[in-house]
Amino acid sequence: MGFEENKATDKIEGRNPVMEALRSGRTIDKILVQTGEKHGSILKILALAKEKRIAVSYVERAKLDKIASGHAHQGVIAYVAAKEYVSVGEIIKIARDRGEQPFIVICDDITDPHNLGSIIRSANAAGVHGVIISKHNSVGLSATVAKTSAGAVEFTPVAKVSSIAQTIEQLKKENVWVVGADMDGENTIHTHDFSGAVAIVIGNEGKGISHLVKERCDFMVRIPMLGKISSLNASVAGALMIYEVVRARQNK
Amino acid sequence: MGFEENKATDKIEGRNPVMEALRSGRTIDKILVQTGEKHGSILKILALAKEKRIAVSYVERAKLDKIASGHAHQGVIAYVAAKEYVSVGEIIKIARDRGEQPFIVICDDITDPHNLGSIIRSANAAGVHGVIISKHNSVGLSATVAKTSAGAVEFTPVAKVSSIAQTIEQLKKENVWVVGADMDGENTIHTHDFSGAVAIVIGNEGKGISHLVKERCDFMVRIPMLGKISSLNASVAGALMIYEVVRARQNK
Repeated sequence: MGFEENKATDKIEGRNPVMEALRSGRTIDKILVQTGEKHGSILKILALAKEKRIAVSYVERAKLDKIASGHAHQGVIAYVAAKEYVSVGEIIKIARDRGEQPFIVICDDITDPHNLGSIIRSANAAGVHGVIISKHNSVGLSATVAKTSAGAVEFTPVAKVSSIAQTIEQLKKENVWVVGADMDGENTIHTHDFSGAVAIVIGNEGKGISHLVKERCDFMVRIPMLGKISSLNASVAGALMIYEVVRARQNK
Repeated sequence: MGFEENKATDKIEGRNPVMEALRSGRTIDKILVQTGEKHGSILKILALAKEKRIAVSYVERAKLDKIASGHAHQGVIAYVAAKEYVSVGEIIKIARDRGEQPFIVICDDITDPHNLGSIIRSANAAGVHGVIISKHNSVGLSATVAKTSAGAVEFTPVAKVSSIAQTIEQLKKENVWVVGADMDGENTIHTHDFSGAVAIVIGNEGKGISHLVKERCDFMVRIPMLGKISSLNASVAGALMIYEVVRARQNK
């Protein structure tokens, strides 16, 4: 997927992602729509674009195919101002301003943009205050990530940091518990107490959480593996952890 | 990702090869026939497909050309299962033989092979006895599904049924509780009691669980949505439900 990342990250592709971008109030420079496209959701996009005075150009499908980074533009591509990253401090502040215990997701070197998009989608759905990704290793917020997130990147503050390990130290000073998933964890996700200010660490698809990061986690917890395979998809494992925090917060 | 499907070795192309596959009794998911094609051997293939109740779709030649891996599809391509399917009865028997309450996952029209692969992976990890998919609507066990499942298709019994609704009736007679996920569910996944023999129903990526299936579910449960987006990835939603059964069975 690397080639997609090399292309611009300032395009949003597909009907739902473009609609979400419009609704979120994000700055859109221009929208390209396939000539003759009359799908209901495209008409809604056109109406909203008109209302917001955003320029619309009609182009042939072949041109959209050429411009698109991903596989499913569905007849519409929006050029947007690249999404602004926030700082870790800002994520903490968002939580405090809401009078909530910080709830953060850390991606330690997620390399598949579909996984990162899915994690951001789950994080947003669970009410996470922000997602932290690594500057050096992780994929960025590309068009593929935006599309897989079903628009959630628009609503989810994302911080990009130089060192996940240092960031964990910073979070600990803010009294945030840092919890990673691991095969050798003592407690399972079902027995660990996820209450309080918490950051969930999701490891790389193949290698898991790096040694440097693991030794800084307050807790390592295990997802029960009862079948013949030994691991879950990274975005699934992440979602299982994330929703344990939801359970703990709803006190159920 | 369509191009991956094209590379897959899960297609049989050409009149004789497809006829041989039909005669051999190999499990065929679907047959694509060129619109207007009336060659004698194609008519024989159609007759045999009808007899064996295999779905047939008519498509334009250009589409077949695009799908074909080789140069001589001769107007017909068959999709074959990467592995053999089992019956619903066999899944129940696997559970009973182990002295366990049946734990089943039903995919009601999952259309993305990556999602189906991820669901089968999570199902296997959670100790599910079998996965049920629909003959008409779902993707079959293609090479992409096998790959995304991280090998779990090899270890997970999969049944392919004509009617999910009828299958649910069959499961109810076996005293299996059927639980679907829905935005309007009364209980959440965190408050519903998932103990006992259970089948988890995972709905289509865009449309959710179909009306016919929903009205046959014993319970509809809700996944808390606390952010700005209104749904989770189908394989993530499925995994959250599946692991609630694990929790209930481990009595934690």
